[in-house]
Amino acid sequence: MVQVKMGSNILGANELLARKNRNLFEERELLVVNLMSSPGSGKTTILERTIEALKGRLKLGVIEGDLYTDRDAQRIEQKGAPVVQINTEGACHLDAGMISGVLAKIETRELDLMVIENVGNLVCPAEFDLGEDCRVVVISTAEGNDKPMKYPLIFRQADAILINKIDLIPYTDFNLSQFQQDAAQINPDAQMFEVSARTGKGMEKWADWLVARVEEKKAGYNKKG
Amino acid sequence: MVQVKMGSNILGANELLARKNRNLFEERELLVVNLMSSPGSGKTTILERTIEALKGRLKLGVIEGDLYTDRDAQRIEQKGAPVVQINTEGACHLDAGMISGVLAKIETRELDLMVIENVGNLVCPAEFDLGEDCRVVVISTAEGNDKPMKYPLIFRQADAILINKIDLIPYTDFNLSQFQQDAAQINPDAQMFEVSARTGKGMEKWADWLVARVEEKKAGYNKKG
Repeated sequence: MVQVKMGSNILGANELLARKNRNLFEERELLVVNLMSSPGSGKTTILERTIEALKGRLKLGVIEGDLYTDRDAQRIEQKGAPVVQINTEGACHLDAGMISGVLAKIETRELDLMVIENVGNLVCPAEFDLGEDCRVVVISTAEGNDKPMKYPLIFRQADAILINKIDLIPYTDFNLSQFQQDAAQINPDAQMFEVSARTGKGMEKWADWLVARVEEKKAGYNKKG
Repeated sequence: MVQVKMGSNILGANELLARKNRNLFEERELLVVNLMSSPGSGKTTILERTIEALKGRLKLGVIEGDLYTDRDAQRIEQKGAPVVQINTEGACHLDAGMISGVLAKIETRELDLMVIENVGNLVCPAEFDLGEDCRVVVISTAEGNDKPMKYPLIFRQADAILINKIDLIPYTDFNLSQFQQDAAQINPDAQMFEVSARTGKGMEKWADWLVARVEEKKAGYNKKG
């Protein structure tokens, strides 16, 4: 939205609220994932498939961020996962205060994993810590392979990158190895997954990664506790 | 980026600079198009095809907006059109001041049409008038058909909507008639074009529309002058 020099104060306030969220998630042994992408990369379809893939393995809840409409929340609800919708009413990203404002509406004590689907935007969401444990970026093969170089911040911060719509590769000019090379140059530590949320391909490895992250967090908690 | 209540002052300053740009474009009989979309919808490929389609009909110049890199400007230059790159260094949109800051670098007096390719973002660019005559939104069929309802502002302001990557429709769940219906509900006046910048399909009608807008602007100028 508007960029101003007083940004540091606003980000300072966000940091405080993010820390508060992080402490709460820690206390409840809840792994929280901030899921980010361009509009239309397939975040919601990935979430639908992730709910199916994790059935019987993890208890998953969702916070849906959208400017307007509750379409995505309805889709998640139909998959049987608890979900709460945030409408930002025009704001281009979620912030930590929006998350803390809805935490009372979801039974976080009963969950192992909570995924926050951010507003579709490759720029602004990257600047706002929500208190999450992991940041995950989704990119669709239909978007072309120049995105890591053009939007480096969001890729640099990612713990995982989901390359979605791999079923479309034969019909596009997407160069998978070039994308992987560029993404690894920006962020050598990010785990990359090739998936098609539409066909279900690759979703198991991604689900396994989430299970491993949840187990790590619980193990760390038990060590401390 | 950061949303603050003092936004009205900042937008006020932007409006003044946008008016200054608009007056200059009027004086030079130059039609200016602000081209907006999600990252990876195909704006630059559309521009490459548009340059080809307008060859011998209009003199076209381009301002490229990107956070980082001059990849898109290089692509435009290879097509033989004059181009100037703006790097916003992290800012999520172009503003009128950025445009006025680069106008000396492009021979606007020799052009009929100037296209400004905005930063890939469906939210923030919609809030900043650059002084343009027309706003054009590109949407790719791979993004799904729920975008007009989820990002209404940018669609509401559009003079034209380019539905790009129509060659991918058979491989996606995109519902063209539903998209057209939703877009027309948000904005009944926008002209819609079905195109594939990759194959070239539909580019002629779009080029004809641009030529008609340029002729309209020149006719209006002659009437006044």
